[in-house]
Amino acid sequence: MGGPFDDIRNLVRSMPEADAEAADAAVARDATLTKPAGALGRLEDLVSWLAAWQGKARPSFDRPLVCVFAGSHGVTRKGVSAFPDAVNRQMLDNFAAGGAAINQLCSAYGLGFKVFDLALDVPTGDITEGPALDERACVATMAFGMEAVAAGTDCLGIGEMGIGNTTVAAALYAALFGGDPAHWVGRGTGIDSDGLSRKVAAVEAALACHAGHLDDPLETLRRLGGREIAAMAGAILAARLQRVPVVIDGYVSTAAAAVLHALDPAALDHCVAGHLSAEGAHADVLERLGLRPVVSLGMRLGEGSGAAVAMGVIKGALACHTGMATFAQAGVSGRDGD
Amino acid sequence: MGGPFDDIRNLVRSMPEADAEAADAAVARDATLTKPAGALGRLEDLVSWLAAWQGKARPSFDRPLVCVFAGSHGVTRKGVSAFPDAVNRQMLDNFAAGGAAINQLCSAYGLGFKVFDLALDVPTGDITEGPALDERACVATMAFGMEAVAAGTDCLGIGEMGIGNTTVAAALYAALFGGDPAHWVGRGTGIDSDGLSRKVAAVEAALACHAGHLDDPLETLRRLGGREIAAMAGAILAARLQRVPVVIDGYVSTAAAAVLHALDPAALDHCVAGHLSAEGAHADVLERLGLRPVVSLGMRLGEGSGAAVAMGVIKGALACHTGMATFAQAGVSGRDGD
Repeated sequence: MGGPFDDIRNLVRSMPEADAEAADAAVARDATLTKPAGALGRLEDLVSWLAAWQGKARPSFDRPLVCVFAGSHGVTRKGVSAFPDAVNRQMLDNFAAGGAAINQLCSAYGLGFKVFDLALDVPTGDITEGPALDERACVATMAFGMEAVAAGTDCLGIGEMGIGNTTVAAALYAALFGGDPAHWVGRGTGIDSDGLSRKVAAVEAALACHAGHLDDPLETLRRLGGREIAAMAGAILAARLQRVPVVIDGYVSTAAAAVLHALDPAALDHCVAGHLSAEGAHADVLERLGLRPVVSLGMRLGEGSGAAVAMGVIKGALACHTGMATFAQAGVSGRDGD
Repeated sequence: MGGPFDDIRNLVRSMPEADAEAADAAVARDATLTKPAGALGRLEDLVSWLAAWQGKARPSFDRPLVCVFAGSHGVTRKGVSAFPDAVNRQMLDNFAAGGAAINQLCSAYGLGFKVFDLALDVPTGDITEGPALDERACVATMAFGMEAVAAGTDCLGIGEMGIGNTTVAAALYAALFGGDPAHWVGRGTGIDSDGLSRKVAAVEAALACHAGHLDDPLETLRRLGGREIAAMAGAILAARLQRVPVVIDGYVSTAAAAVLHALDPAALDHCVAGHLSAEGAHADVLERLGLRPVVSLGMRLGEGSGAAVAMGVIKGALACHTGMATFAQAGVSGRDGD
């Protein structure tokens, strides 16, 4: 092939695997802590996951970061969102002023927060009529997303904002997974029934428009995706290369993960799903990707909010692992007969 | 009747109801915040729940407190736990030294933490052979639990510690809800199959021993319960009277809630279930009580740990409600046509 996508494919081929030794060491320490074995359930799994992907027997949560990628979408001209395009810029200003939900969640849990404006004033192509991006722009946006992972980050939350992007995500899922396009379409920010019909029609039109060109995941991404989705795919991949565990947010963020998964089913081994979204077919998507959500709170806001709540849980999980006394330190008796 | 239990019955009759006006005000503010209506899902419900039970249009989470009640149980002589009784005192020392899981979780989420030693060195009666407590001791312990709710607390997490108390909780559920005793028995701290059989036998023996005396919930509590369960019931009731929303921990804590629910199904309206425990029939219990867990993480540690994780979520929920900009403040456009 030899196009710009080959650089991405080469990076996927070079992904590091989990550090089993570090994970084993975390599990071994866990067994010494003053609690019955397994009693912290998923919290214990999250700690060994951090260890495995940070490659550290004593994992850290000192510099957690939520990155939110914002893009604008040509398909909104088809009436697929309850909110106008102007909200994109207004919400970016709201993020900068500290007024959005994600600002409060990051503050509550001590998470760093960065927003990336992906050419917000230049919408992508309308996917019902042509590709969202050309190949070069798609790769450049992925590369931009790769740069977002700040050095020293030890846990990365991935989120997005972009009016129209639940339609784009639904189109990606329909292309990657097949099935009835309507299955993948939900109400997004809360569109009415007529709008929902327009979303389904837009996804169907996009699939028809690009029929015959949707076999390759990256080609599918550039045709049906958007800049924030390309950037998130880049960020998830870069995190893997840098040994940073990733917490994926909701329905739209997971579409970026799904593209990588289609390239290589092992590409998400360093990821957890932060939450189960109330949007459309998220449960189905997570099951296909082999991801189990940390929380399930009926959220459907995007902007990294579900990932941030999950990172609050992970913070507590690691606090237990790091701070708890061992049976020996505390002079607590083990199981009878031990 | 005229016994000491009548004081408790009178308090249950005097329980205040939710402040619907405060809850409505919180919902009204929520509708002005820079997010699609309903997009924060359960987080929004948790905020209006705080408002309803604090009786404040702008609820607070300034002085959250986790109270852990510790008791010891005569039934442990029947070999129902994987750990020896000595662990009770050792874990109390561990709490005091800051070495337990709950210490780390409270620290991670900024929650106050208090432990109450309920005559740990004097086990209750073995419920397979007689009542755990006499009526006076049961009421005194409930009263002690009522005193635990510190003035100014604006959200109370309820937890417990006590070797043998999953057996006691199972006996209470079997008496309150009926059905096969084995249905209510789980592995607790991780007992083996022989131990599980002994737990089932102990619950069956307790039900047989007290047959004919298990119609009244408070009488059932004193016969089959334990001091930490009586104290938690008192604390939950006192919180209601003082307008403090309560987060219930896991399998054993919920038994205290179940006793109050049996007295009056409205007695838990100010409570949420912090988590779904991995222990035995907790999901069944929560469904019978009409409680929906905030998180479901496979935890089964007790000591308030599941409540604390849920309180971390509640902290984030209220941070959003309190700190987010409104559409007007941020200059964000509403829905198209609004």
